[in-house]
Amino acid sequence: MRAVLITHNESSTGVRNPLKELCEIIKTHSDALILVDAVSSAAGSIISTDAWGIDVVATASQKSWIAPPGIAMVSFSDKAWKAYDKSKCPKYYYDMDQYREYLKIGQPPFTPSLTTMYTLHESLKNMVNEGIESVFERHSKIAQFTRDLAKNIGLDILPEENYASDTVTAIKLPKNVDGKMIVNQVEKNYNIILGGGQQKLAGKIIRVGHMGWINQEDIEKAILALKETLDTL
Amino acid sequence: MRAVLITHNESSTGVRNPLKELCEIIKTHSDALILVDAVSSAAGSIISTDAWGIDVVATASQKSWIAPPGIAMVSFSDKAWKAYDKSKCPKYYYDMDQYREYLKIGQPPFTPSLTTMYTLHESLKNMVNEGIESVFERHSKIAQFTRDLAKNIGLDILPEENYASDTVTAIKLPKNVDGKMIVNQVEKNYNIILGGGQQKLAGKIIRVGHMGWINQEDIEKAILALKETLDTL
Repeated sequence: MRAVLITHNESSTGVRNPLKELCEIIKTHSDALILVDAVSSAAGSIISTDAWGIDVVATASQKSWIAPPGIAMVSFSDKAWKAYDKSKCPKYYYDMDQYREYLKIGQPPFTPSLTTMYTLHESLKNMVNEGIESVFERHSKIAQFTRDLAKNIGLDILPEENYASDTVTAIKLPKNVDGKMIVNQVEKNYNIILGGGQQKLAGKIIRVGHMGWINQEDIEKAILALKETLDTL
Repeated sequence: MRAVLITHNESSTGVRNPLKELCEIIKTHSDALILVDAVSSAAGSIISTDAWGIDVVATASQKSWIAPPGIAMVSFSDKAWKAYDKSKCPKYYYDMDQYREYLKIGQPPFTPSLTTMYTLHESLKNMVNEGIESVFERHSKIAQFTRDLAKNIGLDILPEENYASDTVTAIKLPKNVDGKMIVNQVEKNYNIILGGGQQKLAGKIIRVGHMGWINQEDIEKAILALKETLDTL
């Protein structure tokens, strides 16, 4: 086993995998590289890259970072760089070594998505001002608030609560309720965009995103809109 | 010979390669795929993809398209798709077939740089309104205007004029003039950003960009700033 790929936060199901525990198990039983898709968790949930022994973490500007899409962010451990050195995959645009070289002069090797970069820079400054621990706590609180409100209106959370995401909550709909119709009605009548389910979960769940710039009032409005729409059925 | 890669417009030297003629020669002597880097020429210079028998053309939003960086645009001929089918390169994010599949539902397979996409959409509408022939003519005229002004102040154009770019003009500086200093002085005293030379041409040329939103007045100001700065030496 050369590498384990883990999705930290699965936004289609609202599940946050127990990354720290998974890393411990992997490291106890193997020397595999640990590669983490943290697209929708980074900046919303704690990821102690070095302490947990993670080799590669990848995330993207449009999620909890509160910036438009256009920039991916990746971290590499020393072990990941050693694997890079052995890699025979053809590479050019995504040649990490080019990025490492250009990092020395503070530039990317190719023109980046500048509008995203400027926005992301502002966002990072805001995070530094707020304090990263506070950013995580804020996400954790709003997630708990969302789950509590959903339960208050009589709905169940899709994942076991221990594994519920801090950035998106997946709520089970009552049987025989058409989730796609609910999403459409809520958008039409309340101008609130809820997420629907994907693939096997299509029509069966509602997803409420709470990454970044979301406050309790936003969540209250969304859950109330959901309740009122269900009540009309 | 399986493929020929051509850079249509070389922005570091202000050279536009004679793409049509090169394609004719390639097609006369081989069955090679013709892959064109049109990053800084597309939307500024004519590229008759099908008529000239070009298989792949790649360009980028931040050049003559008048949008921020963040989106690459690529065209594929049937022959290029056949080569794609045989290709054994590992691919995922740049798997063109995924883009082709998603094109059927009018979406990209991955979240695109949306801010760039909206800007690009506006820009494309403007181009359609202006008419693409007029867009090319405008670039051709402003390029000629730039070269004429440069010659009027006693400077030479770097490439032979038959091969001079429609989107960027490279101007030779008099011997013993430090081009980097000129670029710095012009920016400091006139708030105009000229391009310098790269690598072997560093310090020896000045580059004036005239892609997209540039008019004769802008060019006059830039060349006057260059002249006045040279006159102080």
